[in-house]
Amino acid sequence: MAVGNDPFPDMHPVAGFELGIASAGIKKPGRRDLVVMALAPGTTTAAVFTNNAFCAAPVRVAREHLAAASPRYLVTNTGNANAGTGERGMADARRTCETLAEQTGCDSSQVLPYSTGVIGEHLPMDRLLPALPAALDHVGQGSWRDAAEGIMTTDTRPKGASVRFELGGETCTLTGIAKGAGMIRPDMATMLAYIATDAAIARPQLQAMLAAAVDSSFNRITIDGDTSTNDAVTLVATGRGGAVVDSSNYDVFQEHLDGLCRQLAQAVVRDGEGATKFVTLAVAGGRDKAECLDVAYAVAQSPLVKTALFACDPNWGRILAAIGRAGVPGLDVDLVSVWLNQVLIADNGGRAAGYTEEAGQQAMAPEDILIRIHLGRGDASETVWTSDLSFDYVRINAEYRT
Amino acid sequence: MAVGNDPFPDMHPVAGFELGIASAGIKKPGRRDLVVMALAPGTTTAAVFTNNAFCAAPVRVAREHLAAASPRYLVTNTGNANAGTGERGMADARRTCETLAEQTGCDSSQVLPYSTGVIGEHLPMDRLLPALPAALDHVGQGSWRDAAEGIMTTDTRPKGASVRFELGGETCTLTGIAKGAGMIRPDMATMLAYIATDAAIARPQLQAMLAAAVDSSFNRITIDGDTSTNDAVTLVATGRGGAVVDSSNYDVFQEHLDGLCRQLAQAVVRDGEGATKFVTLAVAGGRDKAECLDVAYAVAQSPLVKTALFACDPNWGRILAAIGRAGVPGLDVDLVSVWLNQVLIADNGGRAAGYTEEAGQQAMAPEDILIRIHLGRGDASETVWTSDLSFDYVRINAEYRT
Repeated sequence: MAVGNDPFPDMHPVAGFELGIASAGIKKPGRRDLVVMALAPGTTTAAVFTNNAFCAAPVRVAREHLAAASPRYLVTNTGNANAGTGERGMADARRTCETLAEQTGCDSSQVLPYSTGVIGEHLPMDRLLPALPAALDHVGQGSWRDAAEGIMTTDTRPKGASVRFELGGETCTLTGIAKGAGMIRPDMATMLAYIATDAAIARPQLQAMLAAAVDSSFNRITIDGDTSTNDAVTLVATGRGGAVVDSSNYDVFQEHLDGLCRQLAQAVVRDGEGATKFVTLAVAGGRDKAECLDVAYAVAQSPLVKTALFACDPNWGRILAAIGRAGVPGLDVDLVSVWLNQVLIADNGGRAAGYTEEAGQQAMAPEDILIRIHLGRGDASETVWTSDLSFDYVRINAEYRT
Repeated sequence: MAVGNDPFPDMHPVAGFELGIASAGIKKPGRRDLVVMALAPGTTTAAVFTNNAFCAAPVRVAREHLAAASPRYLVTNTGNANAGTGERGMADARRTCETLAEQTGCDSSQVLPYSTGVIGEHLPMDRLLPALPAALDHVGQGSWRDAAEGIMTTDTRPKGASVRFELGGETCTLTGIAKGAGMIRPDMATMLAYIATDAAIARPQLQAMLAAAVDSSFNRITIDGDTSTNDAVTLVATGRGGAVVDSSNYDVFQEHLDGLCRQLAQAVVRDGEGATKFVTLAVAGGRDKAECLDVAYAVAQSPLVKTALFACDPNWGRILAAIGRAGVPGLDVDLVSVWLNQVLIADNGGRAAGYTEEAGQQAMAPEDILIRIHLGRGDASETVWTSDLSFDYVRINAEYRT
């Protein structure tokens, strides 16, 4: 299940960034489950990883390698997360990098490994390693769409976004893909995203820009409140397109990067496990952003609100109850207002005077729902995106693995 | 759905505490939905209410009345929570107390109101008030079991506990009932519990004892992480049994009260909405109790862990991922161990060496599951009880109200 049609967009190629895809048969024979991304010399790379203490072996190795060298290859397998795999998992991730480095003549620290899929099983190295040459052979022929499909797990469709814009008189391309459908919440998720630009951007700026973009996109989505062991968003700047990011156009690039990350993050929510609704939670009138986020997440992660959304039930009582337990100190409930799309459903601590059940039902009918909450105590605001809780969410997560 | 058979126990009557039940037709005609509890003069009363900022009108009125006077009557309706009902809801709760006071000759501040059921609809006073005389007439004839059934909402069975023990040479009786099946999590829930003893206990001691007992029972259960607008646990001590609680036997009474509250709280989890498993989360080896609770709740409220429990899937990877995101500062994952019942499933950051999938499957088969987690960094421990996340949870909460 997924919300609406989300056709895969036309993807602008990024000079200096090439893709290769192959079948390693990691989980299913014949499935294209191995993706190699090749970065031209001089490319700068930034990455943001999961905050989960149980981070996966590839995340630990990628962090090490990124600190030590400039990456030339990113290698991703689906079907197995190589998480919760102890010392052997670390050795497997390192060996993947070493093997790719031998075959390409770079240093193994210039390879970043990524894995997604089931937790707690060892990588089938006897299948993964022999497939690396085929993936390398394919580099330059693979499309972004093939790669977006190659990294899917419980996703029902590939997710991509691409934009071209003027930057200091030059054309700048920004293209990215993402995967993720469960274990999704702020501070990253079972989510991988790869974004490339042909602009030239120095490493510290690139990292700062990515951190800012992630904070207003991937860190503002939640499907089930669970975070993953493997999340990573990687941004590479090949510098092959002529555009150079400096202080004069930093904001222009940041704005486009924010937009692209938001587009990918929202695509992840629209394809959330069992999702039938795409819900925007816009909280305003808070004293600070932190309390707006507390309220947004309390509502977005409430199983009772999420099942009501699934049922198209304008159950504003559950929304009020979730706001009430968000821990906002001294919240005056009489000042809180809640709208479903344009319909004011609750104010003064209860049902709004002019509200009718019919208006509420109508507001809940579309696939895209906007819940606006005004706390009536300040000027801060925050926005979070989420999905509903359906039978299919339970089915997918009760059946996955078995 | 509910976990196991939980037969309603024999309930020892409490001298000075009488019950009356009637049908007001609040939600369904003929349903016994109105319960009046009469407390003998001299009874002391303690209560703990929801922390939700959107607390219901009856909770606000009960707090006021309890501060002003010694209660003589508790009146409870099911089918309507009188929450999110604004000023009119407050007036309705007050009028219920006033009407009962007129009919019994007490002051309206000596009546505590309780409501449970749907949020956001006004109490049908035209049906509730006319049923009060019948409930009052029935006082002295109603049983604890009738009352336990009278306060149910989505509960599938009544919940009670009763114990008799020696206290300072006298026999002391302690009997209680509870309701609640959804919107359940720490700091109270859509949960009502009424406990009575025939011991004599001064009001400040009674309140302290109740607060301590609730903290290790009702505040250690979670079904869906949602808290309710109406939760209340009330303890009354009639002093009609001969036993007197003082410093010499305070601990004995506390111990029995703790046990009774734990029994009622666990009965609520066993009857959790859609529950097929009763899960004990025992976290040890923490630096302090707070971090043990953080870990216990992160695991207990993880939708991915809960769906795995529903599927009888020993998916230790999801348990590790939940521990990893609990926010324990500087957690060394290599020191963490996890057991399913007696089976060590994970240690050293991954699957335990001797673990087999068969042993895990076997450990997941029973209805009662013990998940033990050792953090390996201190001596603190905490225990939390929860249920799984099933198709029926979604069905119940998507269909409730419609």
